[in-house]
Amino acid sequence: MITIAVDAMGSDQAPRPDVEGAVLAAREHSVSVILVGNPGKIEAELAKHGRRVSNVEVVAASQVITMEDAPMQAFRKKKDSSVHVATRLVRTNAAQALVSAGNTGAVMAVARFGLGLLPGVERAALVAPFPTARGGVSVLIDVGANVDSRPAHLVQFAVMGEIYYRAIFGNRKPRVGLLSIGEEESKGNELVRETHNRLKELPIQFVGNVEGREIFAGNVDVIVCDGFIGNIALKISEGLAQHIAAWLKQALKTTLSAQLGAVLSRGAFAQFKKKIDYSEYGGVPLLGVRSPTVIGHGRSNANAIKNAIRVAAEMVRTKVNEKIEHELSVPAERAAV
Amino acid sequence: MITIAVDAMGSDQAPRPDVEGAVLAAREHSVSVILVGNPGKIEAELAKHGRRVSNVEVVAASQVITMEDAPMQAFRKKKDSSVHVATRLVRTNAAQALVSAGNTGAVMAVARFGLGLLPGVERAALVAPFPTARGGVSVLIDVGANVDSRPAHLVQFAVMGEIYYRAIFGNRKPRVGLLSIGEEESKGNELVRETHNRLKELPIQFVGNVEGREIFAGNVDVIVCDGFIGNIALKISEGLAQHIAAWLKQALKTTLSAQLGAVLSRGAFAQFKKKIDYSEYGGVPLLGVRSPTVIGHGRSNANAIKNAIRVAAEMVRTKVNEKIEHELSVPAERAAV
Repeated sequence: MITIAVDAMGSDQAPRPDVEGAVLAAREHSVSVILVGNPGKIEAELAKHGRRVSNVEVVAASQVITMEDAPMQAFRKKKDSSVHVATRLVRTNAAQALVSAGNTGAVMAVARFGLGLLPGVERAALVAPFPTARGGVSVLIDVGANVDSRPAHLVQFAVMGEIYYRAIFGNRKPRVGLLSIGEEESKGNELVRETHNRLKELPIQFVGNVEGREIFAGNVDVIVCDGFIGNIALKISEGLAQHIAAWLKQALKTTLSAQLGAVLSRGAFAQFKKKIDYSEYGGVPLLGVRSPTVIGHGRSNANAIKNAIRVAAEMVRTKVNEKIEHELSVPAERAAV
Repeated sequence: MITIAVDAMGSDQAPRPDVEGAVLAAREHSVSVILVGNPGKIEAELAKHGRRVSNVEVVAASQVITMEDAPMQAFRKKKDSSVHVATRLVRTNAAQALVSAGNTGAVMAVARFGLGLLPGVERAALVAPFPTARGGVSVLIDVGANVDSRPAHLVQFAVMGEIYYRAIFGNRKPRVGLLSIGEEESKGNELVRETHNRLKELPIQFVGNVEGREIFAGNVDVIVCDGFIGNIALKISEGLAQHIAAWLKQALKTTLSAQLGAVLSRGAFAQFKKKIDYSEYGGVPLLGVRSPTVIGHGRSNANAIKNAIRVAAEMVRTKVNEKIEHELSVPAERAAV
């Protein structure tokens, strides 16, 4: 059985959602989970979930990384943090993948330096899922692991994102696009124009430059960009979706007729909310490190943690890392195809 | 009375919404409008709007720039296009401002080279309004006039955006933020880190780096970024808002109860739609050129055109350009304040 090391002290409400999500994953997805953190607090949460779950273990960690900790300092100074201990469990093969909803920068630093990069990978990248109009999912890579990327980095992000998409969404030939400000090859900034030329040479289904709206349209599966832009894209989407939901809620309270309408439409709203709810999609995998690593949102609820664990287990099962290593460690051979 | 030169052949449905929007603006906002384009088609549309509106004139142009035209080529080859003729009316003072919902790149090129830049301005920039959760408006500058901007350009965008915001939204001390991937000064890419240091020195209310979600939060009024990122931010927002509206519509059709609920909530939905409807905000001004220029969305309806004309007239009335010229042509003096 696949074993996932879960940082139980990661989310804003930790360890409540982290533990509950782990219990749900252990029950529903037949994975083993090692919860890492304050044993007393974890056990207290576990006790709320009825009879002891056999495939959930607890490992102690004496420190906690907070949102206020600077990533590199947390990596260097808090060696017994729940993130460090969970990462060591993965490095020593006690677990096959890492899940944390903690301080994203710190988790990235600990995973990057604690696990190391896969052979051939120059930079790790965060890959985020977005719901599309066609009912599917598109992924954006990188959403914040790097800034000031060079073309060679974006090319690796394209390769890693394509492998990830194939493995997780079972799509044999995902369409890969390059995020830009117009579809024409000549448009975009310097980085995009040079990357475009290189992506054309790869044995992937490169569909060219795509505009921001394509993230939600469902015509492209993997969208490649620098992490500065990808992170802004992610935050804008989260912010807008939240505000739209809030505006709608407000509008539906203004008249008695609207209130009654809202009650009658309850099921529809629930369905709509599920569609724009990030927690359905779990966390954001950090591709390129030596073992599957999924970073959850600080606001993760139990459902988000459960899904992050599901994604991490899928990455192990479908051998995403072995495939990335194979593609990127033999670039000369591949380019000749 | 302020006179606005309006490209009647600009929008996707031209000249219908362009003419209707001009008539509405002439009636509601006490401006004079010169409609430029095919006189027969324009007159046919004007005839639909009842009695002759005294403050609407028609000027002929024999060519039309399409969405397929490459901007610089359209600028050089189609010298009698409606955009060119409208721009010449502004340059010769027959009108004080330009409005077009045509090919954005081509309108930018014609306005930039036909009108020239204001003294002291290095690059023109597009400034787009976004609705905020607090019921106000934030503006993002630049949303696509430039890529690969340097820090000096972003500093000018901040100054122009701040003046624009003060003039149009009557806010005496707008808060100016720099779009980045974390609030800390040390975060962001090279461009952001260097620009941050320069913005701190300006006599504006600089609130530091802001994340993507702040565009909709209402805590910042003017958000500065390179045009590559700003354009992607704009397109993502448009795309997501559209898809959310579509998902909601779909969800509200699934059950009879939801359908009835939707009917009862009709007023609330109309209010909600108005909130996320770009047409309420008119077009996107191109700041930095010698006369106020507002570029509308290709999908503009009459309401969008009317509001674009309103914004152009406001820019004339509040002397946005004179203020920009004053600030940017005396940088040394200003820096010493």
